[in-house]
Amino acid sequence: MDSKRIGILGGGQLGRMLVEAASRLNIQTVILDAANSPAKQINATSDHVDGSFTNYESIVKLAEKTDILTVEIEHVDVAALKKVQEKFPHIEIYPFPDTIKLIQDKYLQKEHFIQNHIDVAESVAVLNNTEEELSSIGEKFGYPFMLKSRTLAYDGRGNFVVKTKEYVSKALEFLKDRPLYAEKWCPFTKELAVMVVRSIDGEVFAYPTVETIHQNNVCHLVYAPARVVPTIAEKATILAKNAVKSFPGCGIFGVEMFLLPNNELLVNEIAPRPHNSGHYTIDACVTSQFEAHIRAVANLPMPKGFTELTTTSTNAIMLNILGDKTVPDKELEICRRALEIPHASVYLYGKTTRADRKMGHINIVSSSIQDCQSRLAYILDDESYLEKGQSLPPLNLIRPSETPLVGVIMGSDSDLPVMSIGANILKKFGVPFELTIVSAHRTPQRMSQYANEAAKRGLKVIIAGAGGAAHLPGMVAAMTPLPVIGVPVKGSVLDGVDSLHSIVQMPRGIPVATVAINNSTNAALLAIRILGAYDSKWLQEMQQYMISMEAEVLGKAEVLEDIGYEDYLTTKLKK
Amino acid sequence: MDSKRIGILGGGQLGRMLVEAASRLNIQTVILDAANSPAKQINATSDHVDGSFTNYESIVKLAEKTDILTVEIEHVDVAALKKVQEKFPHIEIYPFPDTIKLIQDKYLQKEHFIQNHIDVAESVAVLNNTEEELSSIGEKFGYPFMLKSRTLAYDGRGNFVVKTKEYVSKALEFLKDRPLYAEKWCPFTKELAVMVVRSIDGEVFAYPTVETIHQNNVCHLVYAPARVVPTIAEKATILAKNAVKSFPGCGIFGVEMFLLPNNELLVNEIAPRPHNSGHYTIDACVTSQFEAHIRAVANLPMPKGFTELTTTSTNAIMLNILGDKTVPDKELEICRRALEIPHASVYLYGKTTRADRKMGHINIVSSSIQDCQSRLAYILDDESYLEKGQSLPPLNLIRPSETPLVGVIMGSDSDLPVMSIGANILKKFGVPFELTIVSAHRTPQRMSQYANEAAKRGLKVIIAGAGGAAHLPGMVAAMTPLPVIGVPVKGSVLDGVDSLHSIVQMPRGIPVATVAINNSTNAALLAIRILGAYDSKWLQEMQQYMISMEAEVLGKAEVLEDIGYEDYLTTKLKK
Repeated sequence: MDSKRIGILGGGQLGRMLVEAASRLNIQTVILDAANSPAKQINATSDHVDGSFTNYESIVKLAEKTDILTVEIEHVDVAALKKVQEKFPHIEIYPFPDTIKLIQDKYLQKEHFIQNHIDVAESVAVLNNTEEELSSIGEKFGYPFMLKSRTLAYDGRGNFVVKTKEYVSKALEFLKDRPLYAEKWCPFTKELAVMVVRSIDGEVFAYPTVETIHQNNVCHLVYAPARVVPTIAEKATILAKNAVKSFPGCGIFGVEMFLLPNNELLVNEIAPRPHNSGHYTIDACVTSQFEAHIRAVANLPMPKGFTELTTTSTNAIMLNILGDKTVPDKELEICRRALEIPHASVYLYGKTTRADRKMGHINIVSSSIQDCQSRLAYILDDESYLEKGQSLPPLNLIRPSETPLVGVIMGSDSDLPVMSIGANILKKFGVPFELTIVSAHRTPQRMSQYANEAAKRGLKVIIAGAGGAAHLPGMVAAMTPLPVIGVPVKGSVLDGVDSLHSIVQMPRGIPVATVAINNSTNAALLAIRILGAYDSKWLQEMQQYMISMEAEVLGKAEVLEDIGYEDYLTTKLKK
Repeated sequence: MDSKRIGILGGGQLGRMLVEAASRLNIQTVILDAANSPAKQINATSDHVDGSFTNYESIVKLAEKTDILTVEIEHVDVAALKKVQEKFPHIEIYPFPDTIKLIQDKYLQKEHFIQNHIDVAESVAVLNNTEEELSSIGEKFGYPFMLKSRTLAYDGRGNFVVKTKEYVSKALEFLKDRPLYAEKWCPFTKELAVMVVRSIDGEVFAYPTVETIHQNNVCHLVYAPARVVPTIAEKATILAKNAVKSFPGCGIFGVEMFLLPNNELLVNEIAPRPHNSGHYTIDACVTSQFEAHIRAVANLPMPKGFTELTTTSTNAIMLNILGDKTVPDKELEICRRALEIPHASVYLYGKTTRADRKMGHINIVSSSIQDCQSRLAYILDDESYLEKGQSLPPLNLIRPSETPLVGVIMGSDSDLPVMSIGANILKKFGVPFELTIVSAHRTPQRMSQYANEAAKRGLKVIIAGAGGAAHLPGMVAAMTPLPVIGVPVKGSVLDGVDSLHSIVQMPRGIPVATVAINNSTNAALLAIRILGAYDSKWLQEMQQYMISMEAEVLGKAEVLEDIGYEDYLTTKLKK
């Protein structure tokens, strides 16, 4: 695709996935790292450099063979990179060495963000690493506060929580001889992250805002999108884009953020490279973070929409696979379970197993988060990953469609004779659905909860039946963005016209899809048509249904013509 | 994932994509083929064997390093494979050598299918390769008939069309010295193909039925799914599964078929390996044909549903990239155009360019076939790939959502004042839509065409407005499986209740989602909710809209409380 060769400093899993993306485009890559590192395993060139990305001579060797240099890790020798840039002025280096330098020192990074009006947690440089100094910071920030290494810290290594004054000496012991800074305690409610790719002309594209969940300071799960309201997700996107805009150059950046109880967002730190929180993009987004980085540094097109989630994977969970703590390779059992269910993809990095080492990851995608969670629970064989009230489907039946797609609700059990006919249609078509009583007037709280949670639980359509004043369909529609189908149920007076008008005559702004009086059959068929708009399986089933309906009527016509209308009346229509 | 090493005979693009799939699962592969062949480029093991898959010694060398042997090409030395099997009885070979042998000889393959009750074109072995013999076949089969090489034929090489008796000698000259058979002319209307993967315990899983389009005997495009009625697609699936069930062993098979004018299906030939017609699976299906093959031969799980199209890619087009006929590497321009639009993925095989050589392929996926076609037309810069009446969107605006998602129709231009209000809502939300007049009573043919083609054209929802007897929504609903929203338009008499009842009181079987009289706003909002059921973009927009509606009313309440109801009446509600 491009005749320029890309040299990558670092050959771990991030480098490996960059190589894979480049190879698909037939873009040549060369790796600088130890022999047989994960990235080298899948690239047979003899040009790889065995050595360290902190070593000048090795970087020069790499530069001699390439046109573009990039990194999969920020702990490279920046001084060496700058010398290389002087020696080989034609070589493009992304991210810019100065950007890497700034980011390497987390305290300078924070100062940079403050200068650029990006919100960060309050922090202060530790100048002398003495107990007196830390104690006075404790007085200023209050306890607990974070003591952090300015450099070479990752996966929580290099961080120490100074819980009280008594922990000051322990903290110093733990982090002695390192350049330090202190950070005010950040009582975050969630950790969010956004991958942002920047083109060489400074245009930035954000991937969705995701939620990262850590265990023992290591990323355990990533939920995409983050389970926050759209406003927060949007704010996070803007913050991340602004953070990335503050650096010249191009390529992909991972922006980690804290969400505070007051809904404020603070940038925690930034990684100038692909990031663990973006692995889900391989399966869930139009273009992966790895291909995005390759496209950015090779100056290839980046079209509008290429960082979006696809409609199949409006939800994704990424699970990191760590080396088992006790039995080597036991973590492969988790991977094997992932292969047993569809829409779960396994990525292993070709590393020798070691306790807690990042060995690979699994991407689970679905159009429903609940479905992702039930599959995660299956993969980890741990029901605690299910939401409250959610139960694990039979193990060999975990499929995207097993989550209810249609919710059938009615105001009273007296509506059940009418509504059950529609339920039978859903059953006949094999549409997963749920059915219950939710009364607008007698259980208003329950109704409100049902409506508010419906979309989040993976429902696609709600069918609501009600009689008389018939408020249920309209009230549910007022509280969910999902399509709501209303079935006017005929009561003892007014022939159901009261219900029909109550349901259909909604004010502008809140639509209810109303069907004929008592016709829950059509409500069910309409729900299936709505599913079919995006899922061709249901579209085809509906087409088949319509054809069979046609055949049935044609068959009746044939019999009628055959035996004559008088016989037909007596033999075919008698009760 | 699996400690067994897989040796692959052949290192072309199929081998390359197998290696990629295996590497993701950290399954080791070793390739036998020429040095630096495409598959070897992305696998740095030093164990590769440089040599030919038709050479016994080379196959032995490969076998010595592996636990499982498989092929990416069927033209391997089967006798050698059998000897290897004797020498290394612990090695598993898939497909079985006997299967490869049978398939290598296309005439024996046909005989095998006939014995297994799989429909194939009538054919006869040519025993002596003489003009007399061919002429007598011509008398038996009629002209034209096909003369084919029994072995080593691919991409049309080894086939000759004997148009008339006069072509007999030309045909013999073209195919002399090859073992031949003759096949009755097959006046097919389409070529279909199905990938089928067989597990070691004999379970078979079919990928969707696709349509292959050839240019100069080389696969040019693959449409997935095939543009045939579901019954034909289903028949093709069953035929393909039966064909694959007739072979023991495991792995993936590509089954090529002819669709005849009478809708009969004949198996043309079978490939015991990944196949060009299955490249679309990388982006369009839950699991690719390459990973499926690796899973099959490594005896890893294959869950229900893993061969299905995803909801994002209910349609896909695969375009083969051939080396440009005149300017080397000019074909890369096509690839670059593909990178300019989302949902088009480029795969290049790392080969040196040569006229007409298969250099790579591009997968285009979408939920609409028309959208795939418009992007194909953009990539090839050739409007002839568009459907009749379809026009190419502005070049930089080719996005999945640019195809109209909502069709707004009305019975008469007198309905426009009402219906345009809904259209404005769609515009405000940025929903791509179309708007026109379709009258049930005055243009019944047009209505029927509109309804029948709506789903095929990529529409997801239809909004139909009508007044009085108001038949349009119901009639359209009767002819499309899509959800139809009906807007009762108020006429000069009866206050619109006539229209409401005409639209809402549909018989069981054909639902119309009815909204309030004259309320096209709600029809548009309902359409957006329906889109949002599967596309979270619209779900989020709807949530935002509902929040802003809430804010607006709360704002009014504040003003009302602030200035008092009397002032409000005079200052805020005056016309």
